[in-house]
Parts: sequence; C-alpha cells; structure tokens
Amino acid sequence: MKLDFLFRPRSVAVIGASNRPLTIGHRILQNLSDSGYKGAVYPIHPAEDTILGLKAYKTILDVPGGVDVAHIVVKNTLVPAALKECGRAAVKSVIINTAGFSETGAEGIRLEKKIIEIAAKAGIRIFGPNCQGIMNSDPQVQAYCNFTFTRLRRGAISVAAQSGGVGEVIIQRLASLGAGFRMYASNGNAADISIPEIMNYWADDEETKVIIIHLESLADPKEFMAIASRVSRKKPVLAIKTGRTAEGARAVVSHTGRLMGTEIPIELMLETAGVVGFNDQDELCQSAIAFAAQPLPKGKKVAIVTNSGGHGIIAADGCVEAGLLVPPLSDNAREALKAGMLPEAIAGNPVDVLATATPGHYGLALRELMKDPGIDSILVNFITPFFVDCEGVAREIVNACAGEKTAVAVIMTDKAQQAKTLQIIKEGGIPVYDFPETAAKVLGAMSRLSEYRSRDREAFKPLPDVDKTAARSVVNAALKESRSILDGRECAAILDSYGIPRAPAENCGSLEECLAAARKIGFPVALKIDSASVVHKTEAGTLALNIQNERDLTSEFNRLNSIILSSPLPPSSLIPHPSSFVVQRQLPAGIEVIAGAKAVAGAGHVVMFGLGGVFVEVLKDVVFQFAPLSRPAAQRMVASIKCRAILEGFRGKEGADTAGLAEILIRLSQLVTDVPEIIELDLNPILAYRDPSRTAAVDVRIKINGRALA
Amino acid sequence: MKLDFLFRPRSVAVIGASNRPLTIGHRILQNLSDSGYKGAVYPIHPAEDTILGLKAYKTILDVPGGVDVAHIVVKNTLVPAALKECGRAAVKSVIINTAGFSETGAEGIRLEKKIIEIAAKAGIRIFGPNCQGIMNSDPQVQAYCNFTFTRLRRGAISVAAQSGGVGEVIIQRLASLGAGFRMYASNGNAADISIPEIMNYWADDEETKVIIIHLESLADPKEFMAIASRVSRKKPVLAIKTGRTAEGARAVVSHTGRLMGTEIPIELMLETAGVVGFNDQDELCQSAIAFAAQPLPKGKKVAIVTNSGGHGIIAADGCVEAGLLVPPLSDNAREALKAGMLPEAIAGNPVDVLATATPGHYGLALRELMKDPGIDSILVNFITPFFVDCEGVAREIVNACAGEKTAVAVIMTDKAQQAKTLQIIKEGGIPVYDFPETAAKVLGAMSRLSEYRSRDREAFKPLPDVDKTAARSVVNAALKESRSILDGRECAAILDSYGIPRAPAENCGSLEECLAAARKIGFPVALKIDSASVVHKTEAGTLALNIQNERDLTSEFNRLNSIILSSPLPPSSLIPHPSSFVVQRQLPAGIEVIAGAKAVAGAGHVVMFGLGGVFVEVLKDVVFQFAPLSRPAAQRMVASIKCRAILEGFRGKEGADTAGLAEILIRLSQLVTDVPEIIELDLNPILAYRDPSRTAAVDVRIKINGRALA
Repeated sequence: MKLDFLFRPRSVAVIGASNRPLTIGHRILQNLSDSGYKGAVYPIHPAEDTILGLKAYKTILDVPGGVDVAHIVVKNTLVPAALKECGRAAVKSVIINTAGFSETGAEGIRLEKKIIEIAAKAGIRIFGPNCQGIMNSDPQVQAYCNFTFTRLRRGAISVAAQSGGVGEVIIQRLASLGAGFRMYASNGNAADISIPEIMNYWADDEETKVIIIHLESLADPKEFMAIASRVSRKKPVLAIKTGRTAEGARAVVSHTGRLMGTEIPIELMLETAGVVGFNDQDELCQSAIAFAAQPLPKGKKVAIVTNSGGHGIIAADGCVEAGLLVPPLSDNAREALKAGMLPEAIAGNPVDVLATATPGHYGLALRELMKDPGIDSILVNFITPFFVDCEGVAREIVNACAGEKTAVAVIMTDKAQQAKTLQIIKEGGIPVYDFPETAAKVLGAMSRLSEYRSRDREAFKPLPDVDKTAARSVVNAALKESRSILDGRECAAILDSYGIPRAPAENCGSLEECLAAARKIGFPVALKIDSASVVHKTEAGTLALNIQNERDLTSEFNRLNSIILSSPLPPSSLIPHPSSFVVQRQLPAGIEVIAGAKAVAGAGHVVMFGLGGVFVEVLKDVVFQFAPLSRPAAQRMVASIKCRAILEGFRGKEGADTAGLAEILIRLSQLVTDVPEIIELDLNPILAYRDPSRTAAVDVRIKINGRALA
Repeated sequence: MKLDFLFRPRSVAVIGASNRPLTIGHRILQNLSDSGYKGAVYPIHPAEDTILGLKAYKTILDVPGGVDVAHIVVKNTLVPAALKECGRAAVKSVIINTAGFSETGAEGIRLEKKIIEIAAKAGIRIFGPNCQGIMNSDPQVQAYCNFTFTRLRRGAISVAAQSGGVGEVIIQRLASLGAGFRMYASNGNAADISIPEIMNYWADDEETKVIIIHLESLADPKEFMAIASRVSRKKPVLAIKTGRTAEGARAVVSHTGRLMGTEIPIELMLETAGVVGFNDQDELCQSAIAFAAQPLPKGKKVAIVTNSGGHGIIAADGCVEAGLLVPPLSDNAREALKAGMLPEAIAGNPVDVLATATPGHYGLALRELMKDPGIDSILVNFITPFFVDCEGVAREIVNACAGEKTAVAVIMTDKAQQAKTLQIIKEGGIPVYDFPETAAKVLGAMSRLSEYRSRDREAFKPLPDVDKTAARSVVNAALKESRSILDGRECAAILDSYGIPRAPAENCGSLEECLAAARKIGFPVALKIDSASVVHKTEAGTLALNIQNERDLTSEFNRLNSIILSSPLPPSSLIPHPSSFVVQRQLPAGIEVIAGAKAVAGAGHVVMFGLGGVFVEVLKDVVFQFAPLSRPAAQRMVASIKCRAILEGFRGKEGADTAGLAEILIRLSQLVTDVPEIIELDLNPILAYRDPSRTAAVDVRIKINGRALA
C-alpha cells in the first residue's frame, strides 16, 4: 500500500512542537492525543523536556524509533534545514503545515522548488506545504495529523481537499449529518503527493465507499483524468466544482495563482473522468451519504410515495429538474395499490397514501413499487402525523426498501420528538433528508454516475480506414518549413487521409488554372483566397459564391487578385505562393454545422460540434467532448445541441444525416489523437443534408505546433 | 381589523372534542393548552362532562360566552348540521378541519357548496375545510388552533400555506433555524377565507415583517395578483412555486383537482405581483430570515470577505449564479485594505483576509466595504480557526455591518464549540448561514425583490392616440354575426386604430380588384388568401410571394383561385365572400419577429414577444408579460430574449429598431386591455428594420369571444 506510511503512520513527530496552546505545534499534539492515536508521538523542540506530557526531543535525530510522518511547523525559511535533518533521520514523509511557499509569489516558488529537491534527494515524500494534514478514523490508527476542530468519527467517506477550509466544512457537515468520515487529506500547495495519488490509494481501501474531492488547480489534468477514470469505476468519486464563473475563476487565480486546467471547462473534465460534480457543498455531502449507503439506480425512473400531497408535487418538480423521470406506474402496481390503499389515496406517481396512511399502507405501496419493472428508484416522503404509528412506518420503510433498487427517505418532523423514528430509518441504511428537494437532487446525482458508468462499455475503437502516415507527412513537411497554418491543399490532403468528406476543390495560382479547375469540378463554383491567408472570408470580401460561368469566374478572379495586390494586410498573412486561390464546388443550400478540435494544455484535445452561423455566434449552441470519441459519445454530441430539431428536419424542411455527422466527429477526434501536432482544426461550415453522401466540409482551417502541447 | 376574529380569537370551541388522545378533537385542545392560549376554550361533546380538564358542553348553543372560532372536526356529512348550530349560536368563524369535501370529487363538491351556502346565510366565515387551522404566537393571544406538532415560538415571519404539510415543514424549518413565526394559516380547500385575504390582513399587522405563501391552486388569479402586488410593496412576500414541471403540475391536479391558473406560468404571476418565488423550501426559509432582519440591497453588487480562500471562490461562483455582480472594489477601498490588512491578504473581491485575520482585520475590511459606493451588500465568510479570537471577530462583524447595506454572514464551525460566536452574530441581527452557497442565494433573492420594487415607478400610461371606439365597433360587428375570427380588413382596421404598423394591403374579391390593388400599392406584392380562411399559409400553398408584375399576379391569382375552388378543406374554413384575397406590399427581407396577446382565464391578457421562424419554433425564444405594459416593461421584454444579439445587429447585419418593437408591444397590450373580447391576437411575422418607419406587421390573426374571459 503505497501511502500507508502517511495515512497509517506508526509514529508521528512534530518539528516545532510547542507548549503554547494557540500554536499549530501544540494543537496537532493535542489532536493526536484527543483522537487516541495508536502510534508513537515525538514532539521535537530545542529546549523543552516535555510537551503535553510527552517526552520532547531536541532534534528529529534524537528520536529513538523510525518516523513515518514528521509535521514541520517551523518558519518557512527554516523548513529546508528541518527537511535535511529528516533526511538524515530516514523519516518517510513530512507534512509541511508551514505557509509562505509558492502561494506567495516568486520568492516562495523558489523556496518550494528547493524543498522538493531536498526531499527527492533524501527519499522523503512531501505532503503540503501550506496545508492542514491528514486524518484516519480507522480504529487501528486514529491519526489526527491536522490542526482543525472536527472530531474523528468513523465513517465510509474519504475526503481530499486542496483547500483546508473547504475540506473542514465538508467533514463538519458530514459529522452534523451523522456520517463521519474514513480518511481525510488536505494538501494545500500539493508540491509532491497529489490528490490523484491519494485517490488511487483510497481506491484500494476497502472501507472507503465514497471519495469526495475538492480541487482548485491541477499540475497535470491528464494524470487526473486518467486516475479519476479508473477510480470512479471502482467507487463513486464526487467533486465540488469551483471557479465555474469568470468571477470565481478570477478568485481562484488570486488564491492559488493558477487555474484548474487552462481553458478546459471543469464540468467536461469531471464528466469525462466519471466524477460526479456538484455546485454546492451541502448537496455534495447529502449525496455522499446516499452513495455510501445505497446501490446506484439502474436508470432515471423514480417513484414517489408521499403522505403529504403538497410534498409529492414538490418531489415531482425536484426530480424532473434533477434530470429524472417520474413515469406513470405499471398497470399491475396501480391495481395492487388501488386494492390495498385507503379509498381516497391516489395510485399515481406520486403515490399519495394520505396523511392517515398506516405502516401497512406504506409497506404495501413500497413493495409494489419495488416490484414495478418500470421503476429504478424510490423517494419516500413521510411527514409524521401525531395519530399515526410513526415508528411502525419507519420499520416498514426499512423492510420494504431493502432491495436492489435505490431508496431515499424524506422525514419531515420535529427531530427531537421523533428521534426514534429517524434512528430506525438511518440504521436501516436508508439515507434520510429533511426536504424532498434534497432527496431529488441526491437521486439525480446517483443517476448521473449510473449514466457515466454505462458509458464505460462505449470504448473508442480506432477506425481501420485512415491513413495516419499520409496525414503525418503533411504535418511534418509544414513543420519543417516552420509554418503553423496549413494551406488548402494540405488541409484537403489531411481530411482525405481520414475520410472526412469535403467539397471538391482545387488550389490554383493563375486565372488559367482556375478556369481549368472550374471545368473539371463543374459550375457553379466558389472562388476563395486560400485558408492559410485570410480568416474571415465573408468579412474581408475575399470570397465569391455561386459563380455560374467562365466570364463571371474571370471577373471575380480579377477582383480578388486586385484585393491581394492592394492588400493593406501585413504580407505574412497573405501567402503569395502560386496556389493562393481555391476553386471549390458550390454546394446547394443545406444545414450549416461546425465541427472542430483544439488542444488544451496538459489535457489532450477537445472536440467541438454545433450549428453554424447565428446559432454558434449568438446562441453558443455548441457542445464539447474530449478526443478520441466513441461512436455513442459522438452521437450524443450531435443529439445534445439545443437546436437539434433543426438537424431532425424542422417544419417540413430537410434535416441532416446525423449518423454521418457523428462519423465526421469520430474521424476528427481520431485525427487529432493520432497527430497531436494539430492544435486547432475547424470545419466551418460543414453543409449537411439528409442524403449521407452529400454532407461535406466547405471550409477547413488547421493550425499545427511541433511542441507537443497535449 | 377584518380577520381579528380568526387570528386573535377571544374564545375557541371544538365541535368534536374528544378525550381519546389520537384524535384531532383531542390534539387541538391539547395544543391550545400547551401553547398557553389566552382566551376561553369550549370543548363540545354530547356526552362527556370534562375534556382535558375543561368543562365540556353538549352543544355549541350551551356555551355561555360568544365564540369567535369553532373548530369542526366531526364526520364530513355531519358538518352542515354543526354549521347550522354555529349559526344559531352566532359563532363568527369556523375552522373545518374535517376532510371529504371538494378534494374528493363530485359528491364532495356538492357538500362543500352546501356548507358555503349555510355559512353565507348565517354570516359565518369558513376557514377550510380539509385544513389544519391557524396559529398566532402573539404573547397576548398564543392561539394554537391546529393539530400539528411545531411549538409556538415568537417570530417576525407569517406563513400561509394551502397544503398543511408544506406549511408545517416551513415553520418547522424556521424553528430549527431559530426564527419562530408570527402567524400561521393553512386553509386547505379555501372554500371561503382565501390566502389573498389573509395576506391583506397580515399587510397591516406590524409585527409581521415577512409573509411566506404556498399555493397550489387559485380560485381567482386576478384577485391574487391585485392583492399580492399591494402587499408586496409593504413587506416582502415570498412564495414556494410548485407544479413547475409537467409532472409536478399533473400531481397538483391529482391532489387539488385544479391548477393554479390554467396555462399561466406561475413564475410570471408571482413576478408580476412582486412576489419572490422559490423552487426550494429551505432556500425560502433561509431567505425569509434575512428579509426579516436586513434592509433590501439597493442593487446587485456584492462584496465578499473571507478568511478561507476556497470559500471566497465558492461564494463568488454562488453570487454570480444567483444573478448578482461581484465587481472590483473602488480604488479607495483597495488602498485602505492593502494598508490595513496582513501583507499577504488579497484586496480583491473576494477580499481574502487570510486564516490568521484578527477581529481588527475583519472590522477594517467590513468598514471599508460599507463605505465603498460601488457595493450594495456584503457576504462575510468566517471559518473559525482555533488560534483566532472568534468571539471578537463576531463582535466586529456585528458592529461593522450595522449600516444601511445588506449583510449576511457564513459561519463555518462546530456549532457546539462556537455557540457563543454564533449567538453574538445572530443577536446582532446578522443572518447566519452554514454555507456560502446559501448566503449567495439569499442575497440573490433580496436583490430580486429590490428589482421588482424599482419597477413600481414604471406605471402603465394609456396612450392618447388610440381609437378605442373604432376597434370596439369592428369587434362588436363581428360578434353580432357570431364570428370568432376576424378577416383581413377587420384586422387591419383594428391595428390602424391602435397605431400598430402593418404592411399596406387590400382585400379583394376578383382578379380585377387584385390588379387594381397591386397598382395602387406598387409591385412587388404578395398575394394571399384571407387570414380568416387558412392558418398556415406557407404549408397550405396558398401564398404567393414576390410577385413582380401583372402577368405573374394574374397567374398566381388563377392558381390560388383554383385551390379555393377545389379545396378539400371544409367549406366553413374558406370564406367564399368577395374579399377572400389579400394583395399586400412585399416587404424586403428584415428580421422576423412575432408578437401576440392571449387571454388567460381569470387573469387578464398575457403579451408575448419573440423572434420568428426557427427561433420561436425550435428554441422557444419568447418572453411573456401581463398586459398592460409600461414602457420599461415592454423594453425589458424586447431586451430579454435569448437571441437579442440578432435585434442589435449581429456580425455586421442590419439590426432592428428595438424602441419601435417595444412601442408595438405597448399598443398591443393596451388594445387587449381596452377590448378584452380579443382573446387571441398574433402578429406573425412582424418584419423589423433599423429604420423605425419601416417596421410593420405582415400577418395578423385576431380571435374574439363575447363572453369576457379575462
């Protein structure tokens, strides 16, 4: 077990231990003592004989046994010397609580580099600096290597938080919800031991049922996604998303000096890794409890049982808004409910068992829903009327819901008056919430993970009919000439090598070549200046569409040529080589879509898809996914734009071949994965038609970079 | 005070009182006794001598004093007789807790009608039936006329809930947040005393600072909006919105047998009435506490102060997502903060005072933000480090935030360990939250109300230059002929009478008339069949656009005429009168917008605006407001569609004169307000241009109904 020395230390030293109560060096010792830590504790202090009743040592070298974890809480400038001593004492790891490193600017960055070097040389792992520390509630360990205030209480949820404040609030909330935690880690600047490494360790810890993470910045997004993808298949990983808004992101930069993963939307990164993201710390904690206690739902279909009609409505609204379905019940269930419930009860969904429902009514309803094949999970509302056997209802909820379907309970009551009722349900393994809104969000989060996992079967399969060598040789040739924008001929060659359809076109250097090309391609044609020269063709007036004959082609050629000759643009942006014109077949009106890919630093390529023109410019109706794309992922992209109705054929208009569009996205994603030097690729527009053979890219732009970014 | 007899009863009788503990007739007496009710209590029972130690009376007629409130808890079929006796005993009001009335179907509806008649005749006001009752925590009253479990605890928030379950959960949550309540009412079927009437009463109750309402259905939406608009100007009215989704609405229908206000979006109704709507009961309760304790913010600009960087980021994300702004601080504030805070503190927004911040640092930062003219409200995060004087920080928060700006605090701690810290802040009138996310939502809700109130200055001003008589005479003439769809000539006359611009057009009966009209209007023209005959012209092929000359007009006339003659449509839908053709000026390409109005049962007219074509059909990019519209309201509609960038002129394309579009909406709204017999009016499309004089409606459709719906 790679991180046992940190999370299951046999001994903990505190360099900078103190007898003064309001110091970190005192608090850590106090916490180790209060938590009943099972290992040896060694306060290190140059002068004191004892601290908190423990024998103190002058230096770490004086400690009799080996040291697994040494806290370092001395001043930042003294940390390098302390670390060197730890090296000589063969300490396995240090938790550097001291602040004043990379979070404070250039000087601190230098100091942090220095301690990383010292530790690497000495074979010591660093946790921190500028951090809280770790905790482990395992009764065999009970390590509280941290200076905060939440008491150790055994649980099934492990929490790793970059910010100690956020980690503290999360475990505090878990405690107030009665859940406790398994292990805890807050590693601040994360100079060495990273949260992905900790996740990996917890993936193998049997008693950790759920992992919660909080991240503000990531040294290596690709490592995070690779590890998180693996861990999230073994156990649920839940994350709080921060810096979602521009203002939040600005605050991240002020706080940690860097952003999560440059321009990658954090949502996309988490979703790709199968991590369930939350915007709200409380929702995250409430959900963690259910993830730890209940099986994942097989699908999105929820049945609601309620003895308060008003809360049935609230639950239905909440479920739908959480992305769930509240379908009608099966005929069997409905008949059985009608037969067994009170005459005025409502056998719909929600099932309203009425305020006067007995334990028997609840039991009957829940058992029927557990049997209904059209239901994946159950949300039980119970408001406690004074005239009902509430503990009996609680027992029925526990007994009837002990099955393979997900069940959560909303108990609306005075908690002091109904402590026993609540206890019965909680001890029965059913998560209890105060509000139907919360329970609905929790079920929504569980069904998201269930959906992510179902995508695991959708592995990317490389297509056999692509010519990687051809694409690579085009890119290599351009790189050799230090060019970053490919010209029309090169773009065409690359698309052709990956089977991405494009409108027939020829690059030409003279009027004669243009006329010959038009005869070959067939009128009508479009005449453009090569994509390597200008970007927004329509705006620059360097595009002629719908040219019907040779006479018009001649006059348009002359017009464009004079624009080139008199261009006020800097010469470098207009390549005056002999193929700067493109004659292209003029495609008939179709649906304009756009597709593209972009390298994001440290995280591979993101593929983009959307409708073109006003839809992308005004509505931002585009979707993103990391490359490479499985076929279902590509199909999901095409199906998930807001204006998908246009692709389907809106009001009698011709739609588009969506399977063909998905195919283009797959090929595009494979291209940038195979040839990562392509850092930007835009197909804008692609004209799409119902007929699969006609869809084709009209404009292509490819940007390359030899230094592998991804 | 109109409802004093109900909320401040001098005496309460319970018809159906009982010595059996698990009955409602027992529980109400117990609650009256436990709450220390100040008035007289009269159990009514045919046989018992005493109930819960109180003298019991055989009938209500035997009670010695006058009765303000008589609970009726006997079987539903016995309620009419009980009510008659109450009439003879001059009881002022009855709370009918008994269920089995209109909520149960036809039989129950009859029974409910019957009791309404009896009560009206006897001059008794009914509260309920099928309801919980009322409570009043006023120390002079302490009335607990209800059978639920939340203890009376004095507070400033009054709660009226149609569903007793929802009301109970709300006051239970207020209690657990330490807030208590002022008065409470849950009136179930609301056969007589309505929630609007109760709101009206509470508007004049000085100790009610905030009103919370829950509604599932409304007998009279217009009454609700009128009263709520008045009350929400005096004190904040907060509402939980239920039945927002199709599934939720279906559950409302199962539960109460009717929907809020037919097809009116509940959001629109609440917003129009200045009521702050919530999707979440907890968010509602958390917000109510701040509304009761703090002034409303003047605007949306929030400053965040934090000693946990991670929570500063979370707060910033939360504020932005709640519709607030997190702007940079003024130079003055920034300089003062830099000078007074710790060297590594961050004087941005969020202000990160650092974990080691003292009370002095907090005080300094808060006082500077209170002075910053660019800040409307403050969100203070405080996570309690063990080495900081937390109570001192609490005192500074209270002292520094005692001003005219809104302030809320997030105290992240172990509540038992820091009880005193929490108490200092709460007693200082600063609402305390567990999470920044909650505080951000609360500030968002407060700024919404502040925005609604600022709209009060935008009264609707009737335009002088409309000819109501002309419009009304067109409608009256058509009604006399029992027609519900107006023809093109009539629509044109109505638009002209209200100054709504339209494309020049003439109704014609023959080819000769068409040719004459085209000469007068000028080519190009469009030829259509009258709007009273067919609805979707393009689909039916009965529309000819861009006719350039007389020859083409002749052939198009012949084509359309043969369609009419051979039409498979039922004859009634094609009016064969001599004006069934319309020759209209062909307007050049412009931006297609749509505008309309529709009567909604019991709530007046709703005006609609959006972009035409694909934007309305696929994107549903339309907005709604109740008529009549003030100018700012109309401008807001035009500015609030998602694709407003298209109106502004997107990517060099011509935009539209948005002021002129707002003018059309105002005129439209005045038309349907003046002539409510117009139950549907569609201008689809209006072609809009940058030039104000050119924008004009191209197609008009008006539907009328003589029975005033609105």
